[in-house]
Amino acid sequence: MNSLNEINKIMQKIKNVNPLVHCLTNYVTVNDVANSLLSIGTSPIMADSIDEVEEIVSISKALYINIGTLNSPVLKSMEVAQNLAVSKNIPVILDAVGAGASSLRNKSTISILERSVDIVHGNYSEIAYIASSVSNTKGVDASSLDESLDIISMAKKVAKKYNCICVATGEKDIITDSETTYVVKNGCREMGNITGTGCMLTGLIAASAAVEEDFLLASTYATALMAISGERAFENYRGLGSFHVNIFNELSTIDEYIFEGAIKIEKL
Amino acid sequence: MNSLNEINKIMQKIKNVNPLVHCLTNYVTVNDVANSLLSIGTSPIMADSIDEVEEIVSISKALYINIGTLNSPVLKSMEVAQNLAVSKNIPVILDAVGAGASSLRNKSTISILERSVDIVHGNYSEIAYIASSVSNTKGVDASSLDESLDIISMAKKVAKKYNCICVATGEKDIITDSETTYVVKNGCREMGNITGTGCMLTGLIAASAAVEEDFLLASTYATALMAISGERAFENYRGLGSFHVNIFNELSTIDEYIFEGAIKIEKL
Amino acid sequence: MNSLNEINKIMQKIKNVNPLVHCLTNYVTVNDVANSLLSIGTSPIMADSIDEVEEIVSISKALYINIGTLNSPVLKSMEVAQNLAVSKNIPVILDAVGAGASSLRNKSTISILERSVDIVHGNYSEIAYIASSVSNTKGVDASSLDESLDIISMAKKVAKKYNCICVATGEKDIITDSETTYVVKNGCREMGNITGTGCMLTGLIAASAAVEEDFLLASTYATALMAISGERAFENYRGLGSFHVNIFNELSTIDEYIFEGAIKIEKL
Repeated sequence: MNSLNEINKIMQKIKNVNPLVHCLTNYVTVNDVANSLLSIGTSPIMADSIDEVEEIVSISKALYINIGTLNSPVLKSMEVAQNLAVSKNIPVILDAVGAGASSLRNKSTISILERSVDIVHGNYSEIAYIASSVSNTKGVDASSLDESLDIISMAKKVAKKYNCICVATGEKDIITDSETTYVVKNGCREMGNITGTGCMLTGLIAASAAVEEDFLLASTYATALMAISGERAFENYRGLGSFHVNIFNELSTIDEYIFEGAIKIEKL
Repeated sequence: MNSLNEINKIMQKIKNVNPLVHCLTNYVTVNDVANSLLSIGTSPIMADSIDEVEEIVSISKALYINIGTLNSPVLKSMEVAQNLAVSKNIPVILDAVGAGASSLRNKSTISILERSVDIVHGNYSEIAYIASSVSNTKGVDASSLDESLDIISMAKKVAKKYNCICVATGEKDIITDSETTYVVKNGCREMGNITGTGCMLTGLIAASAAVEEDFLLASTYATALMAISGERAFENYRGLGSFHVNIFNELSTIDEYIFEGAIKIEKL
Repeated sequence: MNSLNEINKIMQKIKNVNPLVHCLTNYVTVNDVANSLLSIGTSPIMADSIDEVEEIVSISKALYINIGTLNSPVLKSMEVAQNLAVSKNIPVILDAVGAGASSLRNKSTISILERSVDIVHGNYSEIAYIASSVSNTKGVDASSLDESLDIISMAKKVAKKYNCICVATGEKDIITDSETTYVVKNGCREMGNITGTGCMLTGLIAASAAVEEDFLLASTYATALMAISGERAFENYRGLGSFHVNIFNELSTIDEYIFEGAIKIEKL
């Protein structure tokens, strides 16, 4: 677990570098994504017009793609931005929101993965869909997912197939490059009751990948950071409104000591 | 008031069923709509691309249409989604945001109503516009609205004309199927100073209609739930920011006993 | 400083008039812009479809244009709305978000300015870009900006060139009509860590310009109001989440006495 000794340094690296993260994201949670990036010392820029994505991605340190609300112009912008990012070695991070729920999302997810991404994040159901599409084209029916699914092997399959880091979030969070796997056991179930905690996590992953070229480490750091912030925000729970606000309080005030004291992680 | 004995059961039904609600809504308040749906145990999905609305509405238990920010592609998606929902007997709930303010909103409102909706919600001014358009095509000038307008008879007229439930919110909230009318007297004026409380209410109505086929009852329940959450959130008022947050705290923590103790309702 | 005696009256004027402000703005911070306008007694309306902008701007008291997230349909709507506003003498207020970051934003900023605006707001970097484009077409590289740049002379240059009020926000906030300049020394650095505080300020400026035809005074009032609300919200700081919420608490509860006691302003 050598590299885990390095994990704690990512927090400070982000603050030092203040990387620009280009976000092509949905209109539901975009404000929370921007504020979560700002809260840890990143500069987010939301720009999805085909007329500027190339310029914006060129000055950015990471490209964040989120398919939460798709439409044709934005899909085209994603393609153009991603192709340029890949050619310029700018890390590409995908949040596969709703993969499995419609053909549009399924096709878009696979197209984006096939163009090459560095890190893909989804919840168990979304990662299971992608994993299933590796072996067949039908995809899984979300209703067939149950506790017994082997999410770790699915995440590994996705990571191997697309040569990327795969982050699968749920009861436990799985981060794998197909060979090394970390399991983060922080967080709390109630985070799923606020829209955008997944999108925010993917933003934090992008911010970390912008400053740490070991993407497995970067993804693990960000996943732990979000989970720890969530579980700390849940203390003295008064309802989803305050909980939501507290997540930003925690993200913006956490330090290395708190992080190190709180992280519950296992290497497989 | 037999059916009112049933009203309290809707809260638990929503939590048991965890219905998927398909939202075609504006980009101003979409985050609050999603979080309000999550706060009561519903799964919202925001998807407005013409390339996926049919698939998404097919797996949903209710279709929520909100015209707060319109554009041509979204109007087309609304039409396609609504036609499919009607043919599949999936309840359609309309928030007529800004009806009366522009020809685009007026025409869209009437088109959507004529395609058939199960429940329409608007504030007094919006419902007055729709009611006036029933008898003439000029619409009312919002400036001509005053305290003396008979909002109850307007709401009944809308409900009768479009064979739906009409919810008119304002100083008191009116819910009618044109024959039976409920008046909810909870809530507080300051809710109008936060954008999206109306949109959120319509979301709660959609969630209720997803599990309760008596749409008059479902609408009354949701209206009371939003009003009670608002008035409880207003206690110890410190400003609109905390008030806004508290509404989500109340929505996510209210139980049947609090609801039953707080509801102020009259059947006409 | 005669006019400053009048500044405090704008707060009440807005509450009395309750002006409608038409906002063509980005989807990142639109909810906060709407809530900030509501918090001071304005009625915001977000409407960017080409099919309704003319009707909406015609009934509005100010037109707010924000280029935070551009696309072709919205740019066209902005042009149509702005041309009508100019011809009808409705004040036009521009937030030049990201000017300098892409050709699209640069061209859009200059086009909007050349069509005539009453007030332009940007951060130091954005105003510096506009100022540089006055004398040459290359624009500045944001990285070449440093503490020593003379932001006041740049703001004056912009105001003179485009015959408008220029508001440049940063460590100190500059408001100038090219001849008279106010410097507002309220506010706190952390406001920059919440997305949308700049967009909100521009909203407050639009609200003030809707009721006060001395646009230099209106802009100065709004800038001081936002800065004072921010610094008061920062007291008992617990993190960016609560800070964000507190800004709305302050905006919605501040009164003339608090404002007058807090304002730190210098006339140059």
